[in-house]
Amino acid sequence: MSMLGSVKDFKGLKGLTYGELNKLSCEIREMILQVTLKNGGHLASSLGAVELTVALLRAFDPQRDKIIFDVGHQSYAYKILTGRLERFHTLRTRGGIAGFPRMDESPYDFFTTGHSSTSISAAMGYAKARDISGRNHEVVAVIGDGALLNGVSFEALNCVESTGTKVIIVLNDNKMSISPRIGGIAGHLARLSVNPTYIKFKDFIKDQCHTLKRGDALEEALKKIKSKLKSLILPTNIFEEMGINYWGPFNGHDIEEMEEVFRLARHCKEPVLIHVLTKKGKGCCEAENNSPFFHGIGPNTDLDAAQNHTATSRPSWSEIMSEALTEAASHDPRIAVCTAAMTDGTKLNGFAEKYPERFFDVGISEEHMLTFAAGMAAGGMRPAVCIYSTFLQRAADQLMHDICLSKLPVMIGADRAGLVGEDGETHHGLLDVPWFRTLPGITIAAPRDASDLRFFVNGWIERGIPMVARYPRGKAPRDILPAGRTERVPAGWGKLEILARGSDVCLLGIGSTVELMLKTAEKLETGEGIIPTVADLRFIKPLDLEGLSEIMRKHSVVVTAEENYLNGGSGMAVSEYACRNHPECRVINIGIPDRYISHATRSEQWTECGLTPEAVINSLKEQ
Amino acid sequence: MSMLGSVKDFKGLKGLTYGELNKLSCEIREMILQVTLKNGGHLASSLGAVELTVALLRAFDPQRDKIIFDVGHQSYAYKILTGRLERFHTLRTRGGIAGFPRMDESPYDFFTTGHSSTSISAAMGYAKARDISGRNHEVVAVIGDGALLNGVSFEALNCVESTGTKVIIVLNDNKMSISPRIGGIAGHLARLSVNPTYIKFKDFIKDQCHTLKRGDALEEALKKIKSKLKSLILPTNIFEEMGINYWGPFNGHDIEEMEEVFRLARHCKEPVLIHVLTKKGKGCCEAENNSPFFHGIGPNTDLDAAQNHTATSRPSWSEIMSEALTEAASHDPRIAVCTAAMTDGTKLNGFAEKYPERFFDVGISEEHMLTFAAGMAAGGMRPAVCIYSTFLQRAADQLMHDICLSKLPVMIGADRAGLVGEDGETHHGLLDVPWFRTLPGITIAAPRDASDLRFFVNGWIERGIPMVARYPRGKAPRDILPAGRTERVPAGWGKLEILARGSDVCLLGIGSTVELMLKTAEKLETGEGIIPTVADLRFIKPLDLEGLSEIMRKHSVVVTAEENYLNGGSGMAVSEYACRNHPECRVINIGIPDRYISHATRSEQWTECGLTPEAVINSLKEQ
Repeated sequence: MSMLGSVKDFKGLKGLTYGELNKLSCEIREMILQVTLKNGGHLASSLGAVELTVALLRAFDPQRDKIIFDVGHQSYAYKILTGRLERFHTLRTRGGIAGFPRMDESPYDFFTTGHSSTSISAAMGYAKARDISGRNHEVVAVIGDGALLNGVSFEALNCVESTGTKVIIVLNDNKMSISPRIGGIAGHLARLSVNPTYIKFKDFIKDQCHTLKRGDALEEALKKIKSKLKSLILPTNIFEEMGINYWGPFNGHDIEEMEEVFRLARHCKEPVLIHVLTKKGKGCCEAENNSPFFHGIGPNTDLDAAQNHTATSRPSWSEIMSEALTEAASHDPRIAVCTAAMTDGTKLNGFAEKYPERFFDVGISEEHMLTFAAGMAAGGMRPAVCIYSTFLQRAADQLMHDICLSKLPVMIGADRAGLVGEDGETHHGLLDVPWFRTLPGITIAAPRDASDLRFFVNGWIERGIPMVARYPRGKAPRDILPAGRTERVPAGWGKLEILARGSDVCLLGIGSTVELMLKTAEKLETGEGIIPTVADLRFIKPLDLEGLSEIMRKHSVVVTAEENYLNGGSGMAVSEYACRNHPECRVINIGIPDRYISHATRSEQWTECGLTPEAVINSLKEQ
Repeated sequence: MSMLGSVKDFKGLKGLTYGELNKLSCEIREMILQVTLKNGGHLASSLGAVELTVALLRAFDPQRDKIIFDVGHQSYAYKILTGRLERFHTLRTRGGIAGFPRMDESPYDFFTTGHSSTSISAAMGYAKARDISGRNHEVVAVIGDGALLNGVSFEALNCVESTGTKVIIVLNDNKMSISPRIGGIAGHLARLSVNPTYIKFKDFIKDQCHTLKRGDALEEALKKIKSKLKSLILPTNIFEEMGINYWGPFNGHDIEEMEEVFRLARHCKEPVLIHVLTKKGKGCCEAENNSPFFHGIGPNTDLDAAQNHTATSRPSWSEIMSEALTEAASHDPRIAVCTAAMTDGTKLNGFAEKYPERFFDVGISEEHMLTFAAGMAAGGMRPAVCIYSTFLQRAADQLMHDICLSKLPVMIGADRAGLVGEDGETHHGLLDVPWFRTLPGITIAAPRDASDLRFFVNGWIERGIPMVARYPRGKAPRDILPAGRTERVPAGWGKLEILARGSDVCLLGIGSTVELMLKTAEKLETGEGIIPTVADLRFIKPLDLEGLSEIMRKHSVVVTAEENYLNGGSGMAVSEYACRNHPECRVINIGIPDRYISHATRSEQWTECGLTPEAVINSLKEQ
């Protein structure tokens, strides 16, 4: 029987030797590797955090203590050891366990997450709730070095001292967030990582741990040695400057060392940050050597093929956007491109190599990125920002306040707009349309194919306007031509486009739903003998009112479909326009209903949300 | 003739002696004081930054160099000296100059702002645009210590080194952001402020400034002395750790000293942060001694009366919210309250005094605040967050990702929701309804009077749900009773309320527009002989579909009015419901049109946006 089979969960960790714990870690790593290669997921981070998780679960008791993983990329071992061993093979599948911590999945997931840098704030909240209600337990935030360098983490760290509560922050430092980490503080962490003063201090802590029992005495001793060290050669430490005890660095793959330090941290009455060094992708050579690639991988990944980038036929939306910008940059020196730690995700490597002086990876700093782009635009550039729609939520105010209000020519490439599949609730891009449609002066468009995306990019450069182009996860379809055309010539700026003329019913898609509408039209014709008009709305804002008016005059029913929340979406804007100006025309809206959509394949999610030809036809019949 | 009259603008500063410049500063301060007391505005910050502005405009040339004020609270002297002297008396009035920097107001306002902490990012963008296009000018960000402690500023500082461009950051440190500043870094700044090492270094810089001319030699000399100092006794400096040269502290009221340092900074080829110490409210005893109060003041402020808090009759919405929470806290130990540097603005002083252990001012850290509140809620508390609607935009993602997704019981008191008057474009609370109405699981309500706000607070506590209660700037009206009632008994949870029964037309207000609808009804009755129904929608989400249905069955026209963007607002949701379920009922939506609304009085803005009985009646007639 395997170690894991007999250990089962964190309660089984107690009696094991460190040799056994290391063997167990290997088994956990192997399980993570196998399941992630099959189901997709965040491989490299989770592989790097196995020993850390084992040490945490030996030093802390998740039945009392609250352990909060930031982002959740590194939480797989924790899931396995907190009651989800048997179900771990269902990771990221419909009805299975989620790829991120979910409070509704387990009593041991103390905070739901997926976006980065929330763990310290959440931990402080838990700690303060504990203090106020007179309870007594530890609160531990486990955060990576990439997430630490975000503004939200900084705000939290800056508040630790004045909030006056004890939290334990475990900094899991793999020197590599999603992409290689960025920024001045990264250098600071690197300097701390190799400092011999701290290594001596570490030995001291370890010695103390064996000889001292009472927290008070321990703290006194610690303080004494620390102030002594400080007055000699202690280097600058921003955590200490912020009133947070800094302990480290420690070997994040040495369970015994970490466990001792964590136990010591239990005794400390003040906030403490424990710096542990880990290797992202630990135990999987491919992932160790190319951890940005293995940060998040898709289902059924073949390690060899993945490494060799044997790309399949059609390019992804990200690639098309990246190519359009690279092409534009070749003849327009004003084009610059920004990403927030997503060079790989948004496929900007080509641009970065070709135009390094006009390429900016700012780390996980979405807010700074948008305002930085606004500043460049004010200085005469035409910056584009490639960002996942879900992370654009982090910079919603900057889009309004710094870009749209001053009509600055920034293009937002809102990648992964729509349902994202296995990453689930926290990662969908369903809010960009309802939120940003309300900003005066913005232009929002969604391409149905590569030709339109290139057309939008070039039109934006020409016009110099604040603009969002949204496109979904995955491959772009082949160019979609209007019926009877043999050449793909984009329709006019701001115009919707009729792709097939029929009568009575108009199926109005946008972006990814144009294909859905074309398939629905086929089924309607073969199944019901109805030949509908099919149109592509193209521009969410401003709406093509003339085009809509013509459609509404000629059809008695218009069905809109969109891959974002229905509530406040473009379909409702179409409905509202019809209601006011063409009350004789009925409008049916199809899109994402008013709830959070759980992890599953994107195709399963489309079905769940009624984005299928059958569901569109049913909604027509129900009228 | 006054100094100011002959100097006119920055060009006139050149030939003056420091004695004359000090006299000029007094005149500018007097002008700011007089205009601000009459028109309202950000008095204390602007008074503190007069000498700093004069020194900036002598050392830098705004015809070439880009000077970017963060937030803009301290930009009045800059406005006066960059061509807006004659119009300064129109500050914050309709058609007059804005209270914040506006790119469309002056070629010398290089970045439009109003929300904090954007200046460093914007300056980096300008600097990078300069580098890429081969231009040659300085970029200066002027930022207060409060704004510096925000996450966006941190993200920018962290990126300065890797962005590899030169910016000059002037830290205007008055040790007091809007409220007394918060956080670990505040302590760090305080320690830097009194460090003798830096004062010696300052003398050194001043000496060099007189003897050296060439930048290169200067930098060499600077580096030498700095590394020497560092190896001796240089204290921890987080800016230096981030790869930014730190110079300071300097006296922010000594024009000569600052001018010399700024000229030196021109020669430096690397990013530099210049730390200047100023006194908020400088030159106005009242404002110096009570700068939080004088941070932002209303029009026609009487200094004596203001100081003595001789409150006028009715309480403000903020006060009602604060009292409701204080009352709840008295019998429910789970109640906690958070603010982001707005204790005064949101009138939480009473709560803070009574329940200091349950009150949290986190500084200008809106994102941290919401996630911190989510953590407290997850830990069993019932935290309320009092925040201006416009600043809630900064934490939109946290509301979705950390609060609503996990259904955590956090109450957001969205203060200043609607049009805010003189603060203008950047400060309106017009997006909360369209944005947050799209979040699954949220409850959003707007009280028409104090009774309903208290009802919403108590209902939230009882239900333990994620909720937003939005209320406008200013005083709450007297309780608004339904016709025929003598006692104010709140209607049911989630229910709209009929206030007056009529026929044919229903006027459906919410929050601040309920009074508007009642006035409209009066005018309709007296002027047109029409007796409309008047109703209060109360809940924006979930909508009271039953109540709406009953109204739509009984009336042929429903007019909705709301103080937020029409686009995506609750009126559109009502329209959409009517369209689908009661197509025989026409719905007219009144609200804020799809554009940015300039500074003016709130009443002028209401008129401009058609929120008057006359405009409502006209929209009815146009049907």
